[in-house]
Amino acid sequence: MAPLLKDELDIVIPTIRNLDFLEMWRPFFQPYHLIIVQDGDPTRTVMVPEGFDYELYNRNDINRILGPKASCISFKDSACRCFGYMVSKKKYVYTIDDDCFVAKDPTGKDIDALAKHIQNLLCPSTPLFFNTLYDPYQEGADFVRGYPFSLREGVPTAVSHGLWLNIPDYDAPTQLVKPRERNGRYVDAVMTIPKGSLFPMCGMNLAFDRELIGPAMYFGLMGDGQPIGRYDDMWAGWCVKVICDHLGLGVKTGLPYIWHSKASNPFVNLKKEYKGIFWQEDIIPFFQAAKLTKECDTVQKCYISLSQQVKEKLGKIDPYFVKLADAMVTWIEAWDMLNSKDSKEADVANGKLKGK
Amino acid sequence: MAPLLKDELDIVIPTIRNLDFLEMWRPFFQPYHLIIVQDGDPTRTVMVPEGFDYELYNRNDINRILGPKASCISFKDSACRCFGYMVSKKKYVYTIDDDCFVAKDPTGKDIDALAKHIQNLLCPSTPLFFNTLYDPYQEGADFVRGYPFSLREGVPTAVSHGLWLNIPDYDAPTQLVKPRERNGRYVDAVMTIPKGSLFPMCGMNLAFDRELIGPAMYFGLMGDGQPIGRYDDMWAGWCVKVICDHLGLGVKTGLPYIWHSKASNPFVNLKKEYKGIFWQEDIIPFFQAAKLTKECDTVQKCYISLSQQVKEKLGKIDPYFVKLADAMVTWIEAWDMLNSKDSKEADVANGKLKGK
Repeated sequence: MAPLLKDELDIVIPTIRNLDFLEMWRPFFQPYHLIIVQDGDPTRTVMVPEGFDYELYNRNDINRILGPKASCISFKDSACRCFGYMVSKKKYVYTIDDDCFVAKDPTGKDIDALAKHIQNLLCPSTPLFFNTLYDPYQEGADFVRGYPFSLREGVPTAVSHGLWLNIPDYDAPTQLVKPRERNGRYVDAVMTIPKGSLFPMCGMNLAFDRELIGPAMYFGLMGDGQPIGRYDDMWAGWCVKVICDHLGLGVKTGLPYIWHSKASNPFVNLKKEYKGIFWQEDIIPFFQAAKLTKECDTVQKCYISLSQQVKEKLGKIDPYFVKLADAMVTWIEAWDMLNSKDSKEADVANGKLKGK
Repeated sequence: MAPLLKDELDIVIPTIRNLDFLEMWRPFFQPYHLIIVQDGDPTRTVMVPEGFDYELYNRNDINRILGPKASCISFKDSACRCFGYMVSKKKYVYTIDDDCFVAKDPTGKDIDALAKHIQNLLCPSTPLFFNTLYDPYQEGADFVRGYPFSLREGVPTAVSHGLWLNIPDYDAPTQLVKPRERNGRYVDAVMTIPKGSLFPMCGMNLAFDRELIGPAMYFGLMGDGQPIGRYDDMWAGWCVKVICDHLGLGVKTGLPYIWHSKASNPFVNLKKEYKGIFWQEDIIPFFQAAKLTKECDTVQKCYISLSQQVKEKLGKIDPYFVKLADAMVTWIEAWDMLNSKDSKEADVANGKLKGK
């Protein structure tokens, strides 16, 4: 059983509506502190079910806390959630979308997604060599014959990427082509994504170690005033994976599943995505070729170096990437501002909307 | 459903005993031609159940067919099976150990392992980018959001690596430490091993495309007269993966499962493995760093280039690797001898022991 990291984990939820979905999660989430990032109209009231311990930030709060640096936080896009990563003071973060419900395992039992994420984060990853029996640290599994003994200690796990039953995380073209496709396949596995391999990180059901990788979990500039949406988590995933590979950290994917209830509108999605569909053909080779030097020995330094490479290499594709590269720097400045030693005390007096 | 590749696939079985295990496989294997490689004493008679179409080679046959080049085929070790890959004239090979039985899926249905391997080999692989919902070509699955469209055609699949329920494929130290561990986890997934990532390839339940990768499926020098055993399939797997990555071919792992009935003796295994346990600490970095030039545009050329690098780099560790490097060259010579256009007709008159 995974330990209850009550004082070491925050749950970050971006939303524009009342959080009724929390009722179903109550047995699993209630011991934890929630950070709710309210998107859109800040005058609207978001209702949180009774009994949850939470703080809530709307756009006015973000602007007040970050000042001019608030420009790096997206508006009218769930990318705004990364503000929650920044204000958390905990070691771990779990983030989930408000249309995700508790899934059932093949025996019909409710899946405690958070407990599984904690288990994933607390045991090592194996990015340097592939283990054919999946996560070797899992009960009943191990390293197979031929797995080098020197690599069996593994590396610290920075990210646990969970999956989705029912509505799969498809792009707009696939949604349009396969409107009825549902994911019913419960794959009972967790695995490390090998070093050097990029993956499409989805922010729907995602946990990470803030201390190890937090400053790279920037969800970019999306939504209002930007030429693109729905690439927030992808952008973060590419940056995170390159930095994890460089710093010797692990990224796991697989279990736990959540139940994704409702497909978003594919026509709206296509509008948000279509530039990304072109751009990713250049972005991915860019990240595959990105180089970080030995001097980049912290996440922040890695991230700043990536931002420079983004400006230089991707800036040629579209001026958007110059703006994004600048926002990446602003994000790190804001992160360090809120996460310096001094900031912790200042933060207490910061006038947050504090829940019960 | 996978097609029945009756005229395009051989099943290769290395053995020292009567092949009673085939009875259980009859519904699945009987349509196919078997190539049995009899290890050990050639005067012993190996009994094959009635009704199977097979050819059988013992050591005398190997020596007669290959002449001095027979030195590259191991004796008293299941590595001898690779002789069967060489004499096959089919496009695909499936190889299985004679202590592997039909496994059941979670619904209790017998698993037709061969049909699943064929399905794996006939659909593409995706080594260039990780798909979080596993094999995107599978029924009910697809590429997830953020997967570049230019990579969705995939690459040809050269290898399908199947897994094992019951007795997992552990090395001697793990067997000794966990004598009671059994693999009961049925993971309903097939995945591509990403480019640049090595894996421990097990020969127990393995299918491959001979035309695409056959000449690299050499199981090395093991057993009688050699300082090492139980690294035959590992050696092949390292070479195969490096060459697949270079030539743009895919390696899949996961389904299908077979039921592995009996753990081999861990004390005997330790004796066979112990040098390998040291050596693999150097061999794996060697293969991770191995370079193949543009001129290496066939499997044979790649393999000869690897043999040169083995001699140069690993020869320093132990004289065994010099001998192995020479055997790699002999293997390619023997392969080409048996697989040239002319050899096909010569082969018919070759005096093989032919089954019914």
